[in-house]
Amino acid sequence: MNRVINDPDRVTEDSLAGVLAAHPDLLAATEHPRVLRRADMGGTPRVGVVTGGGSGHEPAFLGYVGPGLCDAVAIGEVFASPTAKSFHAAFREADQGRGVACLYGNYAGDNMNVKMAVKLAAKDGIRVETVVANDDCASAPPDQPENRRGVAGEIMMWKAGGALSAEGADLEQVIAVSRKAIDSTRSIGIGLSACTIPANGKPNFTIEAGTMEVGIGHHGEHGIAVLPVAPAREMAAIMLEKILADMEFGGENVAVLVSGLGATPLMELYLLYGHVDEMLRARNITPTHRFVGNYFTSLEMMGVSLTLTRLDGELDRLLRAPARSIGLTVLGS
Amino acid sequence: MNRVINDPDRVTEDSLAGVLAAHPDLLAATEHPRVLRRADMGGTPRVGVVTGGGSGHEPAFLGYVGPGLCDAVAIGEVFASPTAKSFHAAFREADQGRGVACLYGNYAGDNMNVKMAVKLAAKDGIRVETVVANDDCASAPPDQPENRRGVAGEIMMWKAGGALSAEGADLEQVIAVSRKAIDSTRSIGIGLSACTIPANGKPNFTIEAGTMEVGIGHHGEHGIAVLPVAPAREMAAIMLEKILADMEFGGENVAVLVSGLGATPLMELYLLYGHVDEMLRARNITPTHRFVGNYFTSLEMMGVSLTLTRLDGELDRLLRAPARSIGLTVLGS
Repeated sequence: MNRVINDPDRVTEDSLAGVLAAHPDLLAATEHPRVLRRADMGGTPRVGVVTGGGSGHEPAFLGYVGPGLCDAVAIGEVFASPTAKSFHAAFREADQGRGVACLYGNYAGDNMNVKMAVKLAAKDGIRVETVVANDDCASAPPDQPENRRGVAGEIMMWKAGGALSAEGADLEQVIAVSRKAIDSTRSIGIGLSACTIPANGKPNFTIEAGTMEVGIGHHGEHGIAVLPVAPAREMAAIMLEKILADMEFGGENVAVLVSGLGATPLMELYLLYGHVDEMLRARNITPTHRFVGNYFTSLEMMGVSLTLTRLDGELDRLLRAPARSIGLTVLGS
Repeated sequence: MNRVINDPDRVTEDSLAGVLAAHPDLLAATEHPRVLRRADMGGTPRVGVVTGGGSGHEPAFLGYVGPGLCDAVAIGEVFASPTAKSFHAAFREADQGRGVACLYGNYAGDNMNVKMAVKLAAKDGIRVETVVANDDCASAPPDQPENRRGVAGEIMMWKAGGALSAEGADLEQVIAVSRKAIDSTRSIGIGLSACTIPANGKPNFTIEAGTMEVGIGHHGEHGIAVLPVAPAREMAAIMLEKILADMEFGGENVAVLVSGLGATPLMELYLLYGHVDEMLRARNITPTHRFVGNYFTSLEMMGVSLTLTRLDGELDRLLRAPARSIGLTVLGS
């Protein structure tokens, strides 16, 4: 396996050592080896914002910890949920006496472990409210939102919730705006190659050369169609049609996020973005916030995801607020 | 070919359309279709800073155009030099009456085309001085610096030169500090897989499974050794030894840049960084500026490059200065 690792079973901890060495100004270790927190939590007590998820999606999840975003993160092994103890420890790190918003993605393991961690935190007297992201509109029909996975749209949820926390809002308000952000968000991915979890040593799913999997999940979960590889403008059309059929977007401003899944060259992500931008404007939808890059990945998978967030005045303001992290820095305007 | 493209021969122009759509606040089109410039050049006339190079290395080169960095960029086809006309047009865009610093990498095509473009600019009355980056210490012996390629270390040159231009320095000063930055910089790469230029449809070089090419160039140029894939800590040691044997680094502060070559998961780049950091500190060398990510890539090549810059007080100050671009944003401190 041609990869940059040591012991395949220790990739996560080896990587975390490097993250901490590289970003002492931004991230700090905690007593729990799978929990990181903001190096500087800021002066005034705020609502704590926590996320968490499996490794292998970098810069998600730890790359969205920082001023204006999340306060602490629970880190799982590659493509595996953090433990309940990790989430619990992250809640304790993030809590500043005003409660904790846990903003995470809809996967069975995460749901179970967050639920247990919330109970553990309650015993400590820490109030935790949760929002479960389910923006992947290819992962279940519209009438089964509880079966939809959370993917790159989680970034919009973290940005909105983190910005409102920074403004001094209370827990109910932070939860409400985080929920609004993810409810206003739809995502879909197209996979062009599989990826290999180092500890497995070979892919646990396949994408044949010359084919693409529309609606693929961030761990190679099956999508809605396997098609011959299409030109980028058709990929853009396929993804946009699915999203626009799933939620009303009309005449508004939107945030658009095109994320590579790991191995896709940045020039190809921009190429795809160009088509998305053009197609949105043709429908009188204006992309006022544009993100193109490797924001939420799946190891070295080739492919791309598209995320759209419908913006009202509040979400627009919160996306513009300053933030600083490995994955997203906003200067503020 | 499982890629996100339309016509393989139009990847560069299709991609540029997306770049301009995504970043109208940062980048602007010019009369020349292969030249972009800063959307806002700032008020006071400065020394213009220009770079250029082939596509496929994104975010290099266009991703380093912005406040505190470069003013204009000449863009070639994938892995091919920009034309002399492109460089010439970039000089005209960047010129504000105080001369232009052209900071680019040492490749035959670029050398030839920059030289022609400088002559064309002279006829317009624009004075252009050049610095040719040659930081890849694996590409030729120490006594043949003229045969060494420019790689990710160019980012340090752009940052230093761009920051000094922003301070209002004159052309001689900008050239001198850019030269000092690249002369204080050494890089080396390790390749773990080949990459495919879309217009070719298949790789024009190979790296066998289970092997790594030490010293590989950004276009697959042969390195200095093909070895069995080593653990990440050995990769770090091999790269560091080569760099430290090439230039005196002792007791100083350094800037360290670990860049993925395209397909390497971010968690693996951090994993490698952790070893580099530890090994440097064991030699009393302190990494005061740390960059880990996909800063200078080769399409979807798997692999990594390591860059070290020896810092004096001036370079340290210039690296800290604020900058904003697709590839690098520094808040300033």
